[in-house]
This record gives sequence, C-alpha cells and structure tokens, in this order.
Amino acid sequence: MRIDILTIFPEMFSPLDQSIVGKAQEKEIVEIHKHDFRENADNKQKHVDDMPYGGGQGMLLMPQPIFDTMDKIPHDGARVILMDPAGKRFDQKMAEELAQEEQLVFICGHYEGYDERIKSLVTDEVSLGDFVLTGGEVAATTMIDSVVRLIPGVLGKQASHEDDSFSSGLLEYPQYTRPEDFRGLKVPDVLMSGHHENIRKWRLTESLRKTLERRPDLLENYDANPEEAKILSQLRAQAENPEL
Amino acid sequence: MRIDILTIFPEMFSPLDQSIVGKAQEKEIVEIHKHDFRENADNKQKHVDDMPYGGGQGMLLMPQPIFDTMDKIPHDGARVILMDPAGKRFDQKMAEELAQEEQLVFICGHYEGYDERIKSLVTDEVSLGDFVLTGGEVAATTMIDSVVRLIPGVLGKQASHEDDSFSSGLLEYPQYTRPEDFRGLKVPDVLMSGHHENIRKWRLTESLRKTLERRPDLLENYDANPEEAKILSQLRAQAENPEL
Repeated sequence: MRIDILTIFPEMFSPLDQSIVGKAQEKEIVEIHKHDFRENADNKQKHVDDMPYGGGQGMLLMPQPIFDTMDKIPHDGARVILMDPAGKRFDQKMAEELAQEEQLVFICGHYEGYDERIKSLVTDEVSLGDFVLTGGEVAATTMIDSVVRLIPGVLGKQASHEDDSFSSGLLEYPQYTRPEDFRGLKVPDVLMSGHHENIRKWRLTESLRKTLERRPDLLENYDANPEEAKILSQLRAQAENPEL
Repeated sequence: MRIDILTIFPEMFSPLDQSIVGKAQEKEIVEIHKHDFRENADNKQKHVDDMPYGGGQGMLLMPQPIFDTMDKIPHDGARVILMDPAGKRFDQKMAEELAQEEQLVFICGHYEGYDERIKSLVTDEVSLGDFVLTGGEVAATTMIDSVVRLIPGVLGKQASHEDDSFSSGLLEYPQYTRPEDFRGLKVPDVLMSGHHENIRKWRLTESLRKTLERRPDLLENYDANPEEAKILSQLRAQAENPEL
C-alpha cells in the first residue's frame, strides 16, 4: 500500500516510523510519503491560509497549495481522505475496507478550517469521533495505525487481530497473566484449572456480559448462536433479578 | 495541568512536543512526563508481558511493571485513564471535563491486552472509537491533543474553539478564503456581498442543513431557538419534497 500525507507538520507523523507501522515500512508492505504543502504555496511568504470571506474568527487553508501538491502526486484510483469532525465516523469496518486499497491520500488541516473547494479533491470525509483536535495530523496517524495493522503480513506471531474487540462483534473477555497472586489480587480459579471447556465457556460468558453491560448496541446486530443466546438470556435474567 | 504517560514507547509521543501542545509546554501551562514502565520490570530480561492464563494467542502486560511505576508517580486525586476499546467513548464533553483536572495519568498498552488487575489502578477506561490500534499511544496522543487545546491560554488569537463543531451543538458551515475564483470554483455570492445579516443567516442555514443531513442525532438534544426551529422545519419540508 502507498500512503501520501499532505500536511504542514510532516514531523508529527514520526510515530508511524516506530513499532508495528515502522516495521511494515521496513518490510516494504507500506510506503508512506509526506508532502509539506507549504512548499507549494505560490506566494513569497509561503502562506497557506487566509481570512474567511464573509468575516469571522480564525484562518482557513487556501485551495492553491493543496491543489498544486495533489497535481504532483500520482493518485489515480486512490481514496483521498479529509479528516473532518463532520465526516463519516471511522470504525473497524472502514479500517478493514481501507486496508484493501492500493493507495490512500490524507489531507490534514491544522488549527483552523479549510476552504470548502478543497473537498472537490476528496473521496471520503472522515471523522475520528465527536471531538475537536488541533489538526488532522494525530487523527490521520490514528487511522493509518488502525488500517496498516490489518494489511496481511504486518502483524507477526506476537500479535494478532483475530481476537480483537469488534472483529468478533463482542468486547473482549478479561485476561490475566503472571503472577497468580499480585498484591492480593488473584487470577480467577477457572483459568488455573486447565479445563479447556470450562475456560472457553467462562470467556464466552464474560465477553457477552461485558458487551451486554457496556455496549448493548453491539448486540442488536449480533448473530448469536444457540449457546450464546442461552447465556445472554441467563445474563439478562440475572440483571433483572440480581438475587438469582 | 500535569500529564503522566506510562508507555514502553515514550518516543511515540513526540507529536505533543510540536505545534500547539508543544507551545503549551513551553508556556508551562501543561507539563508532560513520560515513564517507560519497562525500566521498572523486576525481571532481568526487562520483560513487561507474559502469556495469558488459560491459554490463547498474544501476550498480556503484567501488573508488576505498571503498579511499580505508578508507585513512583505522585498521583493523589489524578484521573487515571486506560485506553481500551471497551471503555467509555471519548467525546468533546469528556474533553471539556478532563480539561478542568489538575492531573491526568495515561496507561498505554501495546500490541496485546493487559492483565485485568491493572484496571484496579484506573479511574476511567476510555475508548477513542470502535476501532483497534497497535497500541494506546496514538489514542492517548489524540486525547491529550483534544484536552490540552481547551485549557485557558493554550489557543492564541490565530485559533479559537468557540466556533468548533460540537461546541455549538451543530456542525460547522462551509467556509471560503481567497481566491474568489479558483480553477472555476467560485465563492458563494452571499459571502462576497458584505451584507452581514444575510451572511449570518446563510451560515446558520448551512450549519443546520449539514447537521440535519449528516448527523440528525445531534439535533435530537439540540435546544433550537425560534429562528433555528423555523429554518429546520423549512429544511425538513425541502428534504421531503425537493421540488419546493
């Protein structure tokens, strides 16, 4: 996969040179190109922003530096993504879809807004969530991290995305590692029992319990098998009558 | 505000040394302390993770390095935040609430899960959204960016959060800057008119239109004034009958 990033803060993407995404670049599974669009500003002062027409606070990114930068980047068939709080909410399904693409281009604003005409370059307006950031850089970094880890070959043996929250449709069950007793906090007996079937059932029950308590919305579209349906109805009965 | 970050990848937080959050550190409005909890692992190999009890793929963060690191950090009254996909969804309201705190502590997992007992140190489990990341680092960076910009004195004149999407409860209206005509794409006439009342009304209408089209959920709890209610009912009528 090729990723192009248009930004005036290329150095803010240094986390992508580390850890798993850094290794994916070393293995040439993904190549990341950062483009400082300030370099393409056609004014002497290299300004990239100007005041809004019609008045108002703040500065807006001008179309020219971004359009001229896009002209220099091959991007036939690429998904061109603009980070915007009003965009479509990023989620695991979008991450899985974007992980199939050959090229992603990210346009990052900073501080302020941007000229609406920049959207004519864009295929996807994406929001990380209902919150505001100083710029699109950390949002794009987050999206890229989430997408790149799904590309085949990126996650090695030490990590895996098969048991991720959301990929099964349920939240993950609680997990424990050594020591068995840490400052008086103990690992549940069932996990120490060596009884695989009991462990499987405990994990499934805890996964369903956590999802029911914290994210009942995930269960609305969840296709429960007969065992899961039975556990869910028991959990619901317990919740309604805690003495059971 | 004091921010402490527990991580095995302290260098992944370098974006916080730049731009607006970097300046907030220079101005001593916020101080950020990164703690590599691998340094506190009490085994010779400095391992921070181990296999899950009960079997399964992947490695889990052990409690010891994180508990011992917390012991060394003064954190009386601090909010201790664990990034977890099963946590409470981060949003602008949570950002505003956290911006009032004197100290935030972030515990970042990486690759894999963590021992459930680590949660006994934590006041808030927070999720950035329904997607999975290689680690909590980019998620914590995003949260910190969003919170720090709200601390008084951080945003200067060149930026402002008064007109942010979400702070008004509506999405932002489209904005335009120079030039008036860029590659044939023109600024709407009303914004060039100099007629302040028309501009105000156009912006309000576009803001309501965008919110209605893209995020009708935001309008459910929105306390519309009479002017806004009238515009909304016109927009709804238009949507039902596009010929109007």
